Amino acid sequence: MNFLEQHIVNEGIILGDKVLKVDNFLNHQIDIVVMKQLAEEMKCRFAGVEVTKILTIEASGIAIATMLASLYGVPLVFAKKETTINSTDDKYTAESYSFTHQKTNVVSVSKPYLQAGEKVLIVDDFLADGYAMSALTDIVAQAGATVSGIGIAIEKGQQKGGSLLRSKGFHLESIAIIERMDHISNTITFKGQEPQPMRRKIGLCK
Amino acid sequence: MNFLEQHIVNEGIILGDKVLKVDNFLNHQIDIVVMKQLAEEMKCRFAGVEVTKILTIEASGIAIATMLASLYGVPLVFAKKETTINSTDDKYTAESYSFTHQKTNVVSVSKPYLQAGEKVLIVDDFLADGYAMSALTDIVAQAGATVSGIGIAIEKGQQKGGSLLRSKGFHLESIAIIERMDHISNTITFKGQEPQPMRRKIGLCK
Repeated sequence: MNFLEQHIVNEGIILGDKVLKVDNFLNHQIDIVVMKQLAEEMKCRFAGVEVTKILTIEASGIAIATMLASLYGVPLVFAKKETTINSTDDKYTAESYSFTHQKTNVVSVSKPYLQAGEKVLIVDDFLADGYAMSALTDIVAQAGATVSGIGIAIEKGQQKGGSLLRSKGFHLESIAIIERMDHISNTITFKGQEPQPMRRKIGLCK
Repeated sequence: MNFLEQHIVNEGIILGDKVLKVDNFLNHQIDIVVMKQLAEEMKCRFAGVEVTKILTIEASGIAIATMLASLYGVPLVFAKKETTINSTDDKYTAESYSFTHQKTNVVSVSKPYLQAGEKVLIVDDFLADGYAMSALTDIVAQAGATVSGIGIAIEKGQQKGGSLLRSKGFHLESIAIIERMDHISNTITFKGQEPQPMRRKIGLCK
């Protein structure tokens, strides 16, 4: 197991065969050491790839994106999920269904912040069915920019997002790929590995 | 003018006497160099103050909070504005009205991520009427933790949040305090300074 898989086994909680809760270090409380490791690992995996901007989507992708932007020394942009009154710019938009929030969002990036010719590294904490990442790749294309790669902390390999994005030719790197979660036996199986017992279980520990 | 005031004058756009748009470096596109400077300036201003956790609220506070957490070597927690299906923990909650989004949010932090005795540095990008920051200080109190300080990038000094929080005895540090914005003359006045002409104006540049 790599560092992220180890954190998932130690601190994650399986809430169902599709839902993994990692609020202890990634989605609510953020372990800054894990963020640094994630950013360094992603930069390593995209070695030799040109990156002029980091793109993520609010909210929990912003921490990883910030660490990556700091490593690369480039700006980051976070796509927004709703319109605010400060929003006067023309926008690139795409629709994205959120399983976690059980609704369809309009994802947007204001046009001035994504220019033709930019080399964009897209990052996020989770990849499941790929709606959010597809929306971001669509927005990058609308801008006439190029997707340098897609960096994901945790890919749910049993859902379709990863194969969808890879089949479109994107360079996708996921630091942990989950092949199976079983909430009855409370085990998790990472790609190419044996099932691992989770340390925590819902209702037993907080 | 300090570095942040200079960025506001160079890149900000006054949309009305209450609304300053800084999407170019703080709220949508994020200038990572400015983030580093902000985090270093805040750590300097809170020198000698014990900090065991950084607390912010989604979404645009997360970048500054990440840089600060990295400097302090402590975890960060971002308060959430709505409930997701992954959310099984008991929560501390408080209400907050968002002028930008024109609605009242229930702000929450799951109880495991804020413990009694913690020393919490609260950070955010903007302080206006102080609803979000008041909600966060309320949540810290509910947890039996202590507010070490409140670090803000841009305080709108013409609105009540700053005086409200200072009158409650909180150690509040704002890196730029705006005393007046005039969208007719397109000038901005920082605390203790002369009015400054803004470089950009809505409709003239993107």
